[in-house]
Amino acid sequence: MSKLIMAQENKRIMGGPDKIFGVSNLAKKRIAEIGKDNVVNSTIGALLDDEGNLIVLSSVVDVLKDLAPKDYAEYAPIAGTPEYIDTVKKAVFGNYNPKGYVEACATPGGTGAIRNAIQNYTKRGDTVLTSDWHWSPYGTIAAEIERRLETYTLFDKEQKFNDSSFDEKLNQILKAQDETVVIINTPAHNPTGYTFTLEDWDKVNRSLKNAAKNKDKKITLLVDIAYLDFSGDADQYRAFFSKLEDFPDNILVLIAFSASKGYTLYGMRCGAILCMTPNKDIADEFKMVATFSSRASWSNGTRASMVVLSRIFADKALLSKVTEERNEYLSMLIKRGNIFMHAAKECNLTTCPFDSGFFITIPCKNADQIGEELQKSNIFVIPIGDGIRISIASISEEACSYIPAKIAAAVSKY
Amino acid sequence: MSKLIMAQENKRIMGGPDKIFGVSNLAKKRIAEIGKDNVVNSTIGALLDDEGNLIVLSSVVDVLKDLAPKDYAEYAPIAGTPEYIDTVKKAVFGNYNPKGYVEACATPGGTGAIRNAIQNYTKRGDTVLTSDWHWSPYGTIAAEIERRLETYTLFDKEQKFNDSSFDEKLNQILKAQDETVVIINTPAHNPTGYTFTLEDWDKVNRSLKNAAKNKDKKITLLVDIAYLDFSGDADQYRAFFSKLEDFPDNILVLIAFSASKGYTLYGMRCGAILCMTPNKDIADEFKMVATFSSRASWSNGTRASMVVLSRIFADKALLSKVTEERNEYLSMLIKRGNIFMHAAKECNLTTCPFDSGFFITIPCKNADQIGEELQKSNIFVIPIGDGIRISIASISEEACSYIPAKIAAAVSKY
Repeated sequence: MSKLIMAQENKRIMGGPDKIFGVSNLAKKRIAEIGKDNVVNSTIGALLDDEGNLIVLSSVVDVLKDLAPKDYAEYAPIAGTPEYIDTVKKAVFGNYNPKGYVEACATPGGTGAIRNAIQNYTKRGDTVLTSDWHWSPYGTIAAEIERRLETYTLFDKEQKFNDSSFDEKLNQILKAQDETVVIINTPAHNPTGYTFTLEDWDKVNRSLKNAAKNKDKKITLLVDIAYLDFSGDADQYRAFFSKLEDFPDNILVLIAFSASKGYTLYGMRCGAILCMTPNKDIADEFKMVATFSSRASWSNGTRASMVVLSRIFADKALLSKVTEERNEYLSMLIKRGNIFMHAAKECNLTTCPFDSGFFITIPCKNADQIGEELQKSNIFVIPIGDGIRISIASISEEACSYIPAKIAAAVSKY
Repeated sequence: MSKLIMAQENKRIMGGPDKIFGVSNLAKKRIAEIGKDNVVNSTIGALLDDEGNLIVLSSVVDVLKDLAPKDYAEYAPIAGTPEYIDTVKKAVFGNYNPKGYVEACATPGGTGAIRNAIQNYTKRGDTVLTSDWHWSPYGTIAAEIERRLETYTLFDKEQKFNDSSFDEKLNQILKAQDETVVIINTPAHNPTGYTFTLEDWDKVNRSLKNAAKNKDKKITLLVDIAYLDFSGDADQYRAFFSKLEDFPDNILVLIAFSASKGYTLYGMRCGAILCMTPNKDIADEFKMVATFSSRASWSNGTRASMVVLSRIFADKALLSKVTEERNEYLSMLIKRGNIFMHAAKECNLTTCPFDSGFFITIPCKNADQIGEELQKSNIFVIPIGDGIRISIASISEEACSYIPAKIAAAVSKY
């Protein structure tokens, strides 16, 4: 990139081609040429039905359309309406009862939550840790506020959680600085579909606790649960919360909540950052810094979406309706995953260890060329470094059954 | 404030009592005790009718309620939908045709626009300039990203724009650093209701151009037009745009647009940052950095509000309906201002030079005590440093006629 003229670099690397945008536009172009039935557009990070239409939970939109004019128009308090703050705890924890202090602050989607976590729990110049396979905006968020993202290797040779890489990188970072944020995106990790098992959590916790024995160190564990409600059984996929409650004061757990996927409110920018801590002072401090950062970045959140979520959780029948509607689509998504993974096995296509969610990743060299090769068969996927990301959320059951063989053929070519 | 435990200070000063929140709560409490007809709650920064109800433009909400499910649910592109980007230019400039390159990027309200302007056009540690009377979140926004707000004296002894203070502070800042952002909130400045005259703009421009003769210096002029559509005649109050078009390349003009007031979409978080520049490369760079910062802070904006504004501006009849509905409330607001200023004159109450908008400021010492004194008469106002801020937007015509005498009496006591 060329030097900036009027704007300040501020240690960021900006510009460069946007791969997702580029491939997505190619897919749209091809659809315009030969019709959507003949194109597999696996570039979209949103849940579509088998006909390629965005799935919108009608039970949620009905509530949104039924609000009073004031509910759309009025400012929400900076941290969110009191009802929303209560609601978001229910939406996150479900039937699980956290033992410590939980505070929450509204944010525009998960992005705002992650931004405010990094901004408040690290210093400029600090390094933040996540896995090699990760949602690329983590790096953008860190860079924009002059932090740096470092990665550990998520999977070992047995395709299990690589706890020794995690431990090594964590200690490396804490040798150079006194505080860090560790981002874990689970369940249904983007882009691999991996879900941390309870045993994985035990290993994470061992590392964190070991590192935290040095009381000069402050570790913030940020769990990004963007895909929680599209992973599987609501209770089973919340069991990991029990692994986040036995930490010393210098390990703080934050949760990034987003209503984008679970309530199909992507465009309404409804999310929250929550803390879990046994220390009330740390919870109060969290509330203060999260509110301050919100006030200074976007002021307040979208009130209408807060009212919608609050109404849903205040009305048992309505909540059941939303849950049932979502579960139908969850079944559809799980079926797609099963079909894809079955077909992948049939043709010996190696994937990252997939559990659930919107995405499956094929580790491979020459991802760009493989992506282009697939485009010849009208299949559009996103190359992500050493792999390609398949969005099973955006393609039909039928496509899930036949594209693994096409991918295997393309991979074998390079 | 005590030392932080887990969070990082990052050079910010957080916490401390929130005055607006505090006084506003006292007002609500009193209303609960003696009824809203007996309380003047002049603490609210939103337009209320004479009965104390939030004014919502029904023509706008009708469009919002009538959207397709997808319009609420789907993500908008990071910089905003293409239709919104076109629309926002029309909403800002009205019948004025800017000569140079105009680019725009969606933001959550005016706050997001101001945040991204400071973040991209200054460096950490830099000082940003605005007037002594100013909207206090400017300081919060600057502090959160480790910048500092410096102020010049807005009014001279003749109660005119104090161009020599402006010039002095600008040069002082540019002696210490190579780049700065200058924030001017006009028309209908919050908190004074002052509007920069075309002559004021000539003086501002003279200072800016003088300072910009040194080509190492980069000055970004950020005009916060939050109250533009509630200031007065649409064309007359846009005449100042002609004063923003004759700058060298090292002066960049940015406009912070908000749909909060003009379209009563406060809670929908709909805004934009725009640039005006004769240099296409600088416009392209603006688009890139504004989009990057958005992606890293809140990802994308509220799509529903973008669609609403786009629909309004795509339909002449609908635009007329919205404008006519707004103009009725604008007339109401102007009448309140006239009545207040007339009554103030009658009782020799000095105000800052008021032109239009939501607020009037009474300069005074001992603002806190005067505020408390007024509370004895069930009048609630916000003490802001060396003055008290009256929100004529939130009080009735009747209250505007009688509270100046009460304020004059309270001021004379201290």
